[in-house]
Amino acid sequence: MAESVSRSLGEFELIARLTARLRRRSGTILGPGDDCAILKPARGRELITIDSMVEGVHFRLDWGTPESLGARALTVNLSDIAAMGGRPTACVVNLAIRPDLDARFFDRLYAGMARAADAAGVDIVGGNVTRAAALSITIALLGEARGGVMTRGAARPGDHLYVTGTLGDAALGWRVLDGQVKARGAARRFLIDRYLNPIARVAAGMRLARIRPAPAAIDISDGLWQDLGHLLERSGVGAEIDARSIPLSPAYRTVAGGDLKLALGGGEDYELLFALRKERSEADLTQRLGVPVSRIGRIVRGRGARLRGDGAPAIAGWDQLKERP
Amino acid sequence: MAESVSRSLGEFELIARLTARLRRRSGTILGPGDDCAILKPARGRELITIDSMVEGVHFRLDWGTPESLGARALTVNLSDIAAMGGRPTACVVNLAIRPDLDARFFDRLYAGMARAADAAGVDIVGGNVTRAAALSITIALLGEARGGVMTRGAARPGDHLYVTGTLGDAALGWRVLDGQVKARGAARRFLIDRYLNPIARVAAGMRLARIRPAPAAIDISDGLWQDLGHLLERSGVGAEIDARSIPLSPAYRTVAGGDLKLALGGGEDYELLFALRKERSEADLTQRLGVPVSRIGRIVRGRGARLRGDGAPAIAGWDQLKERP
Repeated sequence: MAESVSRSLGEFELIARLTARLRRRSGTILGPGDDCAILKPARGRELITIDSMVEGVHFRLDWGTPESLGARALTVNLSDIAAMGGRPTACVVNLAIRPDLDARFFDRLYAGMARAADAAGVDIVGGNVTRAAALSITIALLGEARGGVMTRGAARPGDHLYVTGTLGDAALGWRVLDGQVKARGAARRFLIDRYLNPIARVAAGMRLARIRPAPAAIDISDGLWQDLGHLLERSGVGAEIDARSIPLSPAYRTVAGGDLKLALGGGEDYELLFALRKERSEADLTQRLGVPVSRIGRIVRGRGARLRGDGAPAIAGWDQLKERP
Repeated sequence: MAESVSRSLGEFELIARLTARLRRRSGTILGPGDDCAILKPARGRELITIDSMVEGVHFRLDWGTPESLGARALTVNLSDIAAMGGRPTACVVNLAIRPDLDARFFDRLYAGMARAADAAGVDIVGGNVTRAAALSITIALLGEARGGVMTRGAARPGDHLYVTGTLGDAALGWRVLDGQVKARGAARRFLIDRYLNPIARVAAGMRLARIRPAPAAIDISDGLWQDLGHLLERSGVGAEIDARSIPLSPAYRTVAGGDLKLALGGGEDYELLFALRKERSEADLTQRLGVPVSRIGRIVRGRGARLRGDGAPAIAGWDQLKERP
C-alpha cells in the first residue's frame, strides 16, 4: 500500500477506486464513471460554487489527517451554500495529485470527504484526477434554494449585523500549528480543531433564509473585516462595528487575550455574517438558528466599516494571494 | 500592465476584474460576485462535469496564446457535455495562479474563455482565484439533456462504431511543438492548431442524442484506444476495429505516414466515439451531425478491443499520470 500512485495506479484506476463506494441520493440519476454525471433538475433555484485548497497555501499534510483534509475541502464549499441559505445537493471533485503520494492517502482523503458529504446530504457525483507538482482539491458544489435566498447585496442602512459562532479561532489554530503562537492543553486542541475541522453553518443558513425580508449574508472565510467589506460593497452601504461585541472563544482569550487582530482579519472561520432589517435578540436567534449568534453592529449609510470601542487593531482581511500559512 | 498579480491585485480584485464584462443568459439569475451563483433549474436532466488543465502537464505557456488556453480549458469540458448529447449552460472557473503572471495575461485568458463560452451558449457564472506554484484552470460545467442522453454503458454486441473527425492530429501537434517530430508549412500549422484550438463536438453530440435507441458515446480525450476501453468496460462488451478505417488527416499522413500510434493512443482529440444499433452510412451521419464521420468497427461479445488489418502498433492510451507533454 505504500506504492506511489504513479507506479501502482493510473488516473482512471484511482478515480474508479475512490468513487466506487460512494452513496447516491435520489436526485442523482448517474454518478461517477461517465463523461458527465446526470442529475434530476433542482427543485427551486439552483446554486453553484467552486473552491480550491492548495497544498502549501491552504493546508500542510503534516498538520492533520487525510480524512480531515477531505472533509475540510468540502466544508469550504458547503459554507458558500450555507451563506446563500441553500441546501447542498451534489458535487464534483478535481484532485491534482503529487504522484509520490500513495493510494492509501487518497482512500483516506476521499473517506473523509465522503463522510462530510453524507452528513450534509451531498452526493459526490463526479471526479477528475490530474498530475501536478502540488496536491490540490477543487470542488464545485451544487445546491438548491426553495424558499428565500440570501445575497451579499441585500443590506440596508439601519439593519442589524450578526455573526454565528466565535471568530479567529481557526486563524489562531494554524499559527499554533505553525509555531508562531504558543498554546497548551485544551485551548491548543480547541484552536487547532477549529482550523482543521471547520463546520459549515448549513442548517443555520437554511433557517436564516426563512426570515423575511431575506437577510443579507456572507460566510467569513477570509476574515470578518474583509468579508464584511464585500457585503458592504455589494449592498452599497457602510457599517459600524462594536469591537467589544466581537465573539471570542475562551481558548482565543486564553491565548491571544483581547487582541482582536485575528478575530477581525484571520480568516478560515466559516461562520456566517448577516444583516437583519428587524432587530432580534441574540438569544432568539441562537435558538432559531441552532448556533450561538452575536450582534456586532449596524449597517449605516455611506461606505466602509468603522470599528468602535477598545482594541481596534490595524485591520486587514486575509488575502490568499498575499499571505501564506 | 506588467506588474505581477500579487503586487497589483489581490484575488478579489482579480476575479472582479475578470468577471466584470461577462454576459448573462436568461437561465442565470445571479452571476459572479456572491458566495454562489443562482441559476434557474435545468430544463430536463442536468449534466455536470469537471476538468482541469495544469501548466507543464496539459499546456505550456510558450506554445500558444493566453486566449487559446482559456478557450481550450472550456473546450475540454464542453467535450464531456457533447459526449452525453447535452446542451452546455453554465460554468464556474477556478484559477490557481502563479503570482508572477501579470494581470494582462489573465485578462487575455478570460477573454478567450468568455469568447468560447459565448459561442457555446455558456455563462461563466462564478470564479475563484487561489495562489499556487503552477498555473491551473479547473472548470465545472453544467448542461442539460432534454431529450435522449448518451452514456458509455449503452453499447451492445452488433452495434456499429463510429468516430467524428480525424484522430491523432493534436497529439502529433504537441510533439511538433515539443520538437520531437518535424513538420513544415501547412501540415505543421494544421497539427499545431488542432492541439491548441480543439473544437468540442457539441452540436454533433446533441444531434446524435436524438437517434433511437440512444447511442453509446464517449469523447476521445485520452486516445481512441483508451477511451474505447472505457466504453467497452462500462458496456460489458468487446470491439473489433479496422486499422485501415481509422480517419487520418492529410497533415497526419504527411508527417506520420501510416503510423497509427498517435491516432490510436495520442489523446487530446476531443472527437466523439459512438456506437449505433443500426448501421448508417458515413455520408448519412456526416450530413446529419454536420461533421465528418467514419465507421471504424463493430461491437462484439467478450472483453477488450482487437485491431484488425495493417499498421497495428503497440497501443496504449495516453494516461496523464504517466506521460508529460
